[in-house]
Amino acid sequence: MQNNFELLGSDQHSKARRGRLRTAHGVIDTPAFMPVGTQGSVKGVSPRELRELNAQIILGNTYHLFVRPGLDVIKHFGGLHNFMGWDGPILTDSGGYQIFSLAKLRKISEEGVDFQNHIDGGRAFISPEIAMEIQAALGSDIVMVLDECVPYPCEYDYAARSGELTARWAKRCRAVASAASVDFRADALGTAHTTARQLVFGIVQGGTFDDLRRASAQALVQLEFDGYAIGGVSVGEPEEEMMRAVQSAEPFLPKQKPRYAMGLGTPPQLLQMIARGMDMFDCVLPTRLARNGTAFTAAGTLNLKNAEFALDKRPIEESCACHACRQFTRGYIRHLIKAEEILGLRLITMHNLHSYLNLMSQARTEIENGTFDQFRKAFVAEYKTRDAIPIE
Amino acid sequence: MQNNFELLGSDQHSKARRGRLRTAHGVIDTPAFMPVGTQGSVKGVSPRELRELNAQIILGNTYHLFVRPGLDVIKHFGGLHNFMGWDGPILTDSGGYQIFSLAKLRKISEEGVDFQNHIDGGRAFISPEIAMEIQAALGSDIVMVLDECVPYPCEYDYAARSGELTARWAKRCRAVASAASVDFRADALGTAHTTARQLVFGIVQGGTFDDLRRASAQALVQLEFDGYAIGGVSVGEPEEEMMRAVQSAEPFLPKQKPRYAMGLGTPPQLLQMIARGMDMFDCVLPTRLARNGTAFTAAGTLNLKNAEFALDKRPIEESCACHACRQFTRGYIRHLIKAEEILGLRLITMHNLHSYLNLMSQARTEIENGTFDQFRKAFVAEYKTRDAIPIE
Repeated sequence: MQNNFELLGSDQHSKARRGRLRTAHGVIDTPAFMPVGTQGSVKGVSPRELRELNAQIILGNTYHLFVRPGLDVIKHFGGLHNFMGWDGPILTDSGGYQIFSLAKLRKISEEGVDFQNHIDGGRAFISPEIAMEIQAALGSDIVMVLDECVPYPCEYDYAARSGELTARWAKRCRAVASAASVDFRADALGTAHTTARQLVFGIVQGGTFDDLRRASAQALVQLEFDGYAIGGVSVGEPEEEMMRAVQSAEPFLPKQKPRYAMGLGTPPQLLQMIARGMDMFDCVLPTRLARNGTAFTAAGTLNLKNAEFALDKRPIEESCACHACRQFTRGYIRHLIKAEEILGLRLITMHNLHSYLNLMSQARTEIENGTFDQFRKAFVAEYKTRDAIPIE
Repeated sequence: MQNNFELLGSDQHSKARRGRLRTAHGVIDTPAFMPVGTQGSVKGVSPRELRELNAQIILGNTYHLFVRPGLDVIKHFGGLHNFMGWDGPILTDSGGYQIFSLAKLRKISEEGVDFQNHIDGGRAFISPEIAMEIQAALGSDIVMVLDECVPYPCEYDYAARSGELTARWAKRCRAVASAASVDFRADALGTAHTTARQLVFGIVQGGTFDDLRRASAQALVQLEFDGYAIGGVSVGEPEEEMMRAVQSAEPFLPKQKPRYAMGLGTPPQLLQMIARGMDMFDCVLPTRLARNGTAFTAAGTLNLKNAEFALDKRPIEESCACHACRQFTRGYIRHLIKAEEILGLRLITMHNLHSYLNLMSQARTEIENGTFDQFRKAFVAEYKTRDAIPIE
């Protein structure tokens, strides 16, 4: 199998890596942040704005799209790229995480998961094979295997059995991918692309247990995926446990494949994860906190609802080059948020996404320059409000 | 007093006029539509998008801005243009309409209006002089006199007394404007502009009574305003009454001044108003209905929530050149609205504003070409859902 990932360089003082991943809809420079487009839209921003923000890839949530508008609709529109008007790469999750966190009346078996969706209570069944079929229909560039994401805290025995089930499911997903003819055509927005296959990433589970994380990583690596994700992190565990889960698995992942730490985190956490050998990230914090008036800056978060910003003529962040910071003051944005004007959350969302994407761009440059570790330490030390942000 | 309005041409078959109004922040081609920026933001769109839509002027609501963020805040930021990052012309209303429709415990006297605002119940008093002072502080290009807007239906005696009060208030506003030194500096976004005065428009009232409308118009014209508005329309009266109110006043307004029909209406109503000699319009319908999933087209309105659009690959309107129509399908926008994604209302808002602004642009061309009346009749005949839209 062709390797679509190129390792361009590594940091001398940490495990940070600079890489490049080729997909059917374009190249992703790593470390990379993927804005989350849960329901076929990155909340508050348009595809045009995502391109202006230099987002190279976005994430789509299979569970949400499966429930609404439903697969038939997205198939009718020729896949998720066409449907949402985004012609860059898309990674979709398998739906597993949302089935375990949002859906009701779940019944898990060897075969798959039976659940009632949270929108209209409709019943559905998803197996590893079905998860792959759905993502093939969505036309994602990178698809994730179906896994069971155990909650935190979780007892050793359950985490062990679940890790084994996840490995067996991964094997079934791998079989589907291998059997699939290479007939996936990436034709977003009428642009002709060469026919290219979907990349498939395995997901390491194992809760907070070192040996289970290692076993899970080893089982997956045998199956030869295009990339490896660390799942079951950022589910409420302390930050040290999150770091440990990654550190336990990472040594067993092949260097020549991309690693994706799922569903996190704060800006300092992202740098810490990069230092631990992670390449790709997705997180709802920049968009979700924006809707509550919270902006990310290099010095920590600002809650723009606070009265102290009412007369503040500065931009959200002095050094920031985003549209919101070039054109608008904290005082105006505060007014918009207080008055519940949509433009307020749009501007903060734009700034926050820029902030995350720019952090990745900076990390890439620092890795190239051999200065990543100093940069990381200085950034983490400067960042004041890391504990104020709920980990999701 | 210098006349800032130039009448470029008139229609042979109706009272439609093609004109140009010069203000401190730029020129407005009439007939003109003014998107409504109630709280210092046209709901859902950014100033950049307004420029891309070729909006030449927007409207700000004095009452809303006075209540929140308050005058001190807007003064601190150097006026409304600077505060909201819009460097084109702004017209502000006097606040009268909102005091009579939103505020609580109003007490009206010869001196002015005492009221409690609808946000935090704070008491305030606005007189004609204060309304002018507030609008001077906002730095609007066009300011409106304080008037009493009577409800529909309204008895003759009350409408008569109210019309006289409105005339006396107009005289006091006029006195403030005449006394004001010409020290209004239009300096939005750091751009240097020449010092220019604010234009002041009077407001014709008189309810649904022909003689009161005429008397009100005549009293205002004596005061020599820069333009004349027809107020107290689109307050729940039948469409014929609305047309009649305009027709009763129009013959008494000077041809060489712009006429502004306040707070309306549907696309056919706007064309009917243009045919009756009106030049400027503002209306919340394009932005407000968009938030409910309703899009304007030349054939009438579409409610994009309807199931019939789920698989519709067409744009909102085939012939439309707006960003939403160039890039997105009805099916996708329907999904966004059903899923309560902000991008959905953004796209429909953009389309609706484009639709209104484009209708005005087309009306201007048709007037220039001497074909306006045919155009109006054909448009009105083609427009199917005029009765489905609540008049606001």
